[in-house]
Amino acid sequence: MMLEKIKSPADVKALDVYSLEALAAEMRTALIQKLSKTGGHAGPNLGFVDVTIALHYVFDSPKDKIVYDVSHQSYSHKMLTGRAEAFLDPEKYWSVTGYTEPCESEHDHFMVGHTSTSVSLALGLATARDLKGETGNVIAVIGDGSLSGGEAFEGLDNAGEYATNFIVVVNDNEMSIAENHGGLYKSLAELRATAGESGNNYFKALGFDYRYVERGNDIATLIEAFKAVKDSKRPVVVHVHTQKGRGLVWAEEDREGWHWAAPFDAATGVVHWGTGESYSEILAEYLLAKIKADPKVVVIHSAVPAGIGFNAGRRKMAGRQYIDVGIAEEHAVALASGLAKGGAKPIYSTHSTFIQRTYDQLSQDLCANNNPATLLVTCAGADGMNDTTHLCIFDIPLMSNIPNLVYLCPTCVEEMKVMADWAIDQTERPVAIRVPNGVTHRSDVFDKDYSRLNTYKVEHRGSRVAIFALGSFYDRGVAAALELKKAGVDATLVNPRFASGVDMALVEELACDHEVFVTLENGVAEGGFGQKIATACGTLGVKVLVRGLAKEFYDKVPFETLCENNRLSPRQVADDVLEALK
Amino acid sequence: MMLEKIKSPADVKALDVYSLEALAAEMRTALIQKLSKTGGHAGPNLGFVDVTIALHYVFDSPKDKIVYDVSHQSYSHKMLTGRAEAFLDPEKYWSVTGYTEPCESEHDHFMVGHTSTSVSLALGLATARDLKGETGNVIAVIGDGSLSGGEAFEGLDNAGEYATNFIVVVNDNEMSIAENHGGLYKSLAELRATAGESGNNYFKALGFDYRYVERGNDIATLIEAFKAVKDSKRPVVVHVHTQKGRGLVWAEEDREGWHWAAPFDAATGVVHWGTGESYSEILAEYLLAKIKADPKVVVIHSAVPAGIGFNAGRRKMAGRQYIDVGIAEEHAVALASGLAKGGAKPIYSTHSTFIQRTYDQLSQDLCANNNPATLLVTCAGADGMNDTTHLCIFDIPLMSNIPNLVYLCPTCVEEMKVMADWAIDQTERPVAIRVPNGVTHRSDVFDKDYSRLNTYKVEHRGSRVAIFALGSFYDRGVAAALELKKAGVDATLVNPRFASGVDMALVEELACDHEVFVTLENGVAEGGFGQKIATACGTLGVKVLVRGLAKEFYDKVPFETLCENNRLSPRQVADDVLEALK
Repeated sequence: MMLEKIKSPADVKALDVYSLEALAAEMRTALIQKLSKTGGHAGPNLGFVDVTIALHYVFDSPKDKIVYDVSHQSYSHKMLTGRAEAFLDPEKYWSVTGYTEPCESEHDHFMVGHTSTSVSLALGLATARDLKGETGNVIAVIGDGSLSGGEAFEGLDNAGEYATNFIVVVNDNEMSIAENHGGLYKSLAELRATAGESGNNYFKALGFDYRYVERGNDIATLIEAFKAVKDSKRPVVVHVHTQKGRGLVWAEEDREGWHWAAPFDAATGVVHWGTGESYSEILAEYLLAKIKADPKVVVIHSAVPAGIGFNAGRRKMAGRQYIDVGIAEEHAVALASGLAKGGAKPIYSTHSTFIQRTYDQLSQDLCANNNPATLLVTCAGADGMNDTTHLCIFDIPLMSNIPNLVYLCPTCVEEMKVMADWAIDQTERPVAIRVPNGVTHRSDVFDKDYSRLNTYKVEHRGSRVAIFALGSFYDRGVAAALELKKAGVDATLVNPRFASGVDMALVEELACDHEVFVTLENGVAEGGFGQKIATACGTLGVKVLVRGLAKEFYDKVPFETLCENNRLSPRQVADDVLEALK
Repeated sequence: MMLEKIKSPADVKALDVYSLEALAAEMRTALIQKLSKTGGHAGPNLGFVDVTIALHYVFDSPKDKIVYDVSHQSYSHKMLTGRAEAFLDPEKYWSVTGYTEPCESEHDHFMVGHTSTSVSLALGLATARDLKGETGNVIAVIGDGSLSGGEAFEGLDNAGEYATNFIVVVNDNEMSIAENHGGLYKSLAELRATAGESGNNYFKALGFDYRYVERGNDIATLIEAFKAVKDSKRPVVVHVHTQKGRGLVWAEEDREGWHWAAPFDAATGVVHWGTGESYSEILAEYLLAKIKADPKVVVIHSAVPAGIGFNAGRRKMAGRQYIDVGIAEEHAVALASGLAKGGAKPIYSTHSTFIQRTYDQLSQDLCANNNPATLLVTCAGADGMNDTTHLCIFDIPLMSNIPNLVYLCPTCVEEMKVMADWAIDQTERPVAIRVPNGVTHRSDVFDKDYSRLNTYKVEHRGSRVAIFALGSFYDRGVAAALELKKAGVDATLVNPRFASGVDMALVEELACDHEVFVTLENGVAEGGFGQKIATACGTLGVKVLVRGLAKEFYDKVPFETLCENNRLSPRQVADDVLEALK
């Protein structure tokens, strides 16, 4: 076996083309074997094996620097840069991350996970190289799907005016996650159809030289193309046409389904997705019902439709009332604002980690105009994604401090639905709803009207201690109250509902006959909900414990560990409250 | 005079072409007259008179909807939509805002001020029109400078796949604010040079039909072009070549200097800029000295170089150590991260209001990677710009809650310089510095090392009351202490320096022998610095007053009024503290 002998890119360079092809086959086998056990980005990695081999054959990493976009296609890169064991030895499967990671290797330059960043980051490396009078190639790898993100355009546009070595490899596998969207993709299709000769060339229009490689899974062809641009003194795009999922028949056929796959049976292709009721399914059915009931309702999504259960069938059912803008969160929010202004009822849904890409559009385009769009923030909280690059814990500080934006945090499925009903029908203001991840059914009886802003709900009236348990941490509040009960304290339990403001009347009332408040929120505490309560209590004489996550970039810390480390277990909350009562 | 008889676009339609030209001349005269008294966006508005007339002649606003980007070129639009008096009667000069404003007129659809938003917002209106089965044209106006912003690209790319009426008027005046940057502008130049025939056509590459108008200040030509695209069923770009500053000889010659001009002498062109020492001049000299001292220092800016005093002469002096990326803040931050990773010393400077456009790049590209770039946040605080669309009061909540980012708030010029010295030379982490607007000289003696994070400085040790006076509000803290002194209270005065963290040791120490803390910050209090202090004091038994601005989109409220309304005058602070001491 060759792969286990590859300790660095130098070992790749020593092989002839036939051996490189054999190596590619070995790498695909290892990838499939590992992915079947661990799950992961199957499609992107299987399609990019050959390009990776050719890159390392032609260029001299780490002197030549390869910067991956998203970096969910960097498994082959890891195999060829001293980390093959992590793909060969099941006991070491978890020894590397699913993204590039500078801590792992000098061949990795950035830790990234959001799309559309590679061109700008790599241009920084190229510019530093030039300022320091050094040499070497800088190569940014970017997928066709990532090209729709504004940051990638800004980077390409800026790079287009440099007169220096800067190579962009566009990995065109004809789709991002679901189908691709945007006029640009028609141009890419034209370029593919004309072997790169079409006049509508986005890259040339931005100032790049351009080279097309139709056979993007053929190593010899790729080597020739990369040799031709190596040491180029001008920015150049190498547009490589690859096959997503190549080598795994089911992934080749269902490219959306296999973009990321859970562990699967390598012999039958059966994926072991989790079972049971899921929020995305519930959301999808809810949104489809809304779409059917009102032709003005329009659901907007940005390239990850599976996140709200909008598979191809549901997308078809929704028709023109479903808009996938591609990876373009800024546009999505501004579009929603325009739709609301025009009298439609837009609902934009995205994961917490991606809402970060659109702060100014939330503030300026949407909230300063106070247009009544509805936002659904999914996958939010410490129980959302837990890679450093996909943390879903910053949305409360980000969104709850923008004027005019009402940020509602339902505690369960039914509350989520009544809040969304209200948000979609009202015409006064933008409303965001933080969708919990777990499927909790609590009750069917919730207020239907949230137009009296910042009105919290007292679910149980006790004494001495009041627990403000926000959204998906409501259950944790209930559990903490139970612990306190054991110690003889009958705590008041509040469902705050609004993350974006304080129920001052209630806070003042409770402060009169309570000694300790504790706030619980499923996200970073700094800048968040609890700090508003603590501030509101500044002169009220009540003690306030604010419990949320400390401000950190956590890396794959399991949910309950994260809670324990931040004194968020019900037992810890109760202990700290009892201590404060002393 | 015709202009005073124009009450609505219908009155424009009644004129023949010769009268329209006379009207344009009248409008330019009125513009120059008003601008000479009030100051404003001279260049953009003078160049866009003719296009505006032609738009209102051909289209039927408000049924047809015109959406302006930035909207700093909408003065002519206001003149033709019932608001001419605001440009003719000096007593009414201030009756309209400098941007589109839905409260003023049904012809204005959005309140905007940041660039690159018009395409997405207008596409929302067009989509709402289609969903509701209505008709009418939707026209997005965007300047060439705004095209470099990622949001504009995302909008164009998405629009390019629609099969519906959507007209984009690209106002190409060959420059944004300073010279244009980016490969795209070479393409625009090629299109101008070839009368629109060049093959490198960015708009076609994104799926748009395309039409070029060379004589973009000729009303008859413009009318013909707009008539040709009216009721188009496909997305189409009308690329209009206009002359910035047309009609005012000094503005025609110095297009950068007259983009926005203070009041001026209409006879001589002498602009009455404010006098005296300014932070931008000090910053410019400081940065130039850094550039000269170290070839690895590189100053990055995004299209408003005047904000740091980088006029053409200084830009030339800085050479390749100065990078203007154009309006592309996302790219600027990611580029800085890449530069820092590559061993250069990047310093990215932008106004507080524009840092909002790059939250995710700060978080993911820069801070998750912990690369040692320096950010200078200028024009920050309630004494920064005060249009709703350009408020500079949200940067503390935005930046102080991102992990790894150190946000320093100097109290005066000298402290700003030592903090920047430290930030630029250290290699551990990203550091942002909030540049105060006023030029305060306080002392030459400041700590040179800020690597012990979150260490506040006690400037005066008193008793009972401690004032935490952050950054540019340090002086306000001094004044409040003086007020308290009159009432017999010798307050402790703290210069917190770090907006991004709490000096827990100091807070606990002061809590032992003080009764009241008050925090002062020059920005929105929610999610900001003071709330961290209030939270830290949750169980310490000290009262905490958090003083900053309430979370609102303020519109042109004078600085001291804003302070008074938020109980931030020294007298009010002292009164509230004394009340809390009771």
